[in-house]
Amino acid sequence: MPPFDVPEGDPFGPHNLPYGVFSLPGTEGSAGAEGSAGAEGSAGAADRRVGVRLGDHVLDAGAAAAALGSPYVSLLARPSLNPLLAAGRTAWSDVRRALTAWVTVPSHRETIESLFHPLSEVTLHLPFEVADYVDFYASENHARNVGRIFRPDAEDSLTPNWKHLPIGYHGRSGTVVVSGTDVVRPSGQRKAPSDPAPVFGPSVRLDIEAEVGFVVGTPSRQGSPVALGDFREHVFGLCLLNDWSARDVQAWEYVPLGPFLGKSFATSVSAWITPLDALEPARVAPPERTHPLLPYLDDSDDEPGGYDLRISVSVNGHVVSEPPFSSMYWTAAQQLAHMTVNGASLRTGDLYGSGTVSGPSERERGSLLELTWNGRDPLELPDGKRTFLEDGDVVTLSAWAPGPDGTRVGLGDVTGRVVPSQAHPASH
Amino acid sequence: MPPFDVPEGDPFGPHNLPYGVFSLPGTEGSAGAEGSAGAEGSAGAADRRVGVRLGDHVLDAGAAAAALGSPYVSLLARPSLNPLLAAGRTAWSDVRRALTAWVTVPSHRETIESLFHPLSEVTLHLPFEVADYVDFYASENHARNVGRIFRPDAEDSLTPNWKHLPIGYHGRSGTVVVSGTDVVRPSGQRKAPSDPAPVFGPSVRLDIEAEVGFVVGTPSRQGSPVALGDFREHVFGLCLLNDWSARDVQAWEYVPLGPFLGKSFATSVSAWITPLDALEPARVAPPERTHPLLPYLDDSDDEPGGYDLRISVSVNGHVVSEPPFSSMYWTAAQQLAHMTVNGASLRTGDLYGSGTVSGPSERERGSLLELTWNGRDPLELPDGKRTFLEDGDVVTLSAWAPGPDGTRVGLGDVTGRVVPSQAHPASH
Repeated sequence: MPPFDVPEGDPFGPHNLPYGVFSLPGTEGSAGAEGSAGAEGSAGAADRRVGVRLGDHVLDAGAAAAALGSPYVSLLARPSLNPLLAAGRTAWSDVRRALTAWVTVPSHRETIESLFHPLSEVTLHLPFEVADYVDFYASENHARNVGRIFRPDAEDSLTPNWKHLPIGYHGRSGTVVVSGTDVVRPSGQRKAPSDPAPVFGPSVRLDIEAEVGFVVGTPSRQGSPVALGDFREHVFGLCLLNDWSARDVQAWEYVPLGPFLGKSFATSVSAWITPLDALEPARVAPPERTHPLLPYLDDSDDEPGGYDLRISVSVNGHVVSEPPFSSMYWTAAQQLAHMTVNGASLRTGDLYGSGTVSGPSERERGSLLELTWNGRDPLELPDGKRTFLEDGDVVTLSAWAPGPDGTRVGLGDVTGRVVPSQAHPASH
Repeated sequence: MPPFDVPEGDPFGPHNLPYGVFSLPGTEGSAGAEGSAGAEGSAGAADRRVGVRLGDHVLDAGAAAAALGSPYVSLLARPSLNPLLAAGRTAWSDVRRALTAWVTVPSHRETIESLFHPLSEVTLHLPFEVADYVDFYASENHARNVGRIFRPDAEDSLTPNWKHLPIGYHGRSGTVVVSGTDVVRPSGQRKAPSDPAPVFGPSVRLDIEAEVGFVVGTPSRQGSPVALGDFREHVFGLCLLNDWSARDVQAWEYVPLGPFLGKSFATSVSAWITPLDALEPARVAPPERTHPLLPYLDDSDDEPGGYDLRISVSVNGHVVSEPPFSSMYWTAAQQLAHMTVNGASLRTGDLYGSGTVSGPSERERGSLLELTWNGRDPLELPDGKRTFLEDGDVVTLSAWAPGPDGTRVGLGDVTGRVVPSQAHPASH
């Protein structure tokens, strides 16, 4: 009987069990109302609740815990994942084990059956309160493509530091939005080399970046770096992430302090956070390191630090790219060790993006910048040519990973529609 | 009678009334325990309370509101300034008017006298929950000095975008700490041009940047820019800010995505937030603009957007520089308009730094990088020469602004001591 009888081979079967936050119809506004609520926003979110996805249903996890007399009600009957994230690795494993039993042991079925809701009938929300957001640049293929496009005369398409450290920068955590939220085309300054002065207007080179986002659970103390081997003590799980980018704004602003307004208008994440425990079968060795690494980044004797995630990028339902996450040069564990080696602390809810995932082949590139070679080679879509995104375009990232016994572990989609730029602000 | 009889000319008289958050002895750990608590941290902060400074005392503002039957108890009897920040400009003015009456009208004295505590007997905490932290680069003198130091052969010491937009980037909000918090010397990668490969270790070029931080109260909606003229609807007040910087780490990492670990280990802010209403007499016109500005940044017809803040930088009690904030090319209102022109939303608790404040003369430079010209010209301090900071050094920023009728408005100091790097992390 549904919801328990998930079809054989369903990527959201009981081997997966990703976490999200949902509300029932009539209790709250749509996902489009997210994003500007700020620190006070969760106060009005009384009807939000932690959900666990099984097939095309979501289990009200806190209500299930209460119905079954589980002690995890204090972690699950909450309006965001933060309490669970803060509980630490042992609790993560224990809760997952309990949830697995609840959805697989027949004797629990009658008790919790009424606590499942069809996905089509719930509203999904940003599943955790984002603390700091950092974005990396960990794909060698992506970095080389960008180097070739923007610095065609450079001796090396990589900057000298690229193979020595995972390059990253801080982004805007307040504009991280959940999948399904519309993205308003950003306005800003741009200046082509031939322009005598910058001009202002809606971005004409709006792009996407297909990334994977890692969600920190366990915090760390300021002044105390987190070692490479402690990655799984701190990181709870991962999601898909679309780092929307206004290439024209970015190009004019980014020297010398890096990307700012070209990125800060919106970052979309999937509504489901897949726990790392569900992705054990997907662990793979990263590409061979071509340069010796300093000890705090040297993972040559560690368990495999990569994840074999098969990403798919579609525009208006048409697949334009299939970037393989296994091709990333820097692992999430290396990124965490680097991010904290200066003593920077971690907080529950910190989010870091992998950087654009681009594989070695043309059909594996994770941005339109690369797919169209900065607009030179338009994509042919069923609804016309594309260099960069047009108003109304819907971009969806989806992914799966190898699961146990030949199954697949599905990641939650991240989707977003581009809506036209709004009126310019009055200058006074 | 003290605490009411503040000496004539005291920069923290009843014309000032900055806000902070304090706890009484025995109720909580010291300020040094701040910073890694994360989103859950405030739960353990039941003994923190909003305070208002008068002379060398702090008034328990929530208790005073309760004792006087004021409706503002809901904004003031709280463990952080966030509820007051979120209440908006009208409430800010109303609360300030009420506080002014409480500390100046004799009939209130008996009621609230016991609610003052000597500053020497309280612990001051980070006064608000920092949402996003952005750092700008708004001093032309500073930008030109940095350009001359690092790009001596460049045709122009400014990058081409500098006069067209206030350059900024996102920093790490989770490592913003309150004045008085020790700063652990960060470790990281550095590579001199002559080194064959990067080396790892404690920074050998630890620096400060004297800045002013602006604190956002009223949030804004994603997709809706904030106009230049709405600055005072959104920004509650300002503080001093020390943007600690590891120059060696920064130099190796920052191309192409900007500063990251060279800055993210710690940013110190003063414990007192001075409301903009207290700084009305300090408003001044910014320097003449040498380039035409796009309409969203054009403040030529606006009220003066600069603030005449006289900053002083001392190392171990010895004044090394006196940067004038009035020399900043870009105003805080322009920075806010730029930061949101792409539709990025504001949240209550957003903090943005002005960038290093450097005046035109040598004794007005806001960083050791500039004061010692990248170490070439050491400073002579009573306790020896300094190029960059040594372990044990205490750096203090202080400032005042012109107040009404010839008075001065004091800003809270921001101070921090450099403590030695801790043991390197095990690599496994």
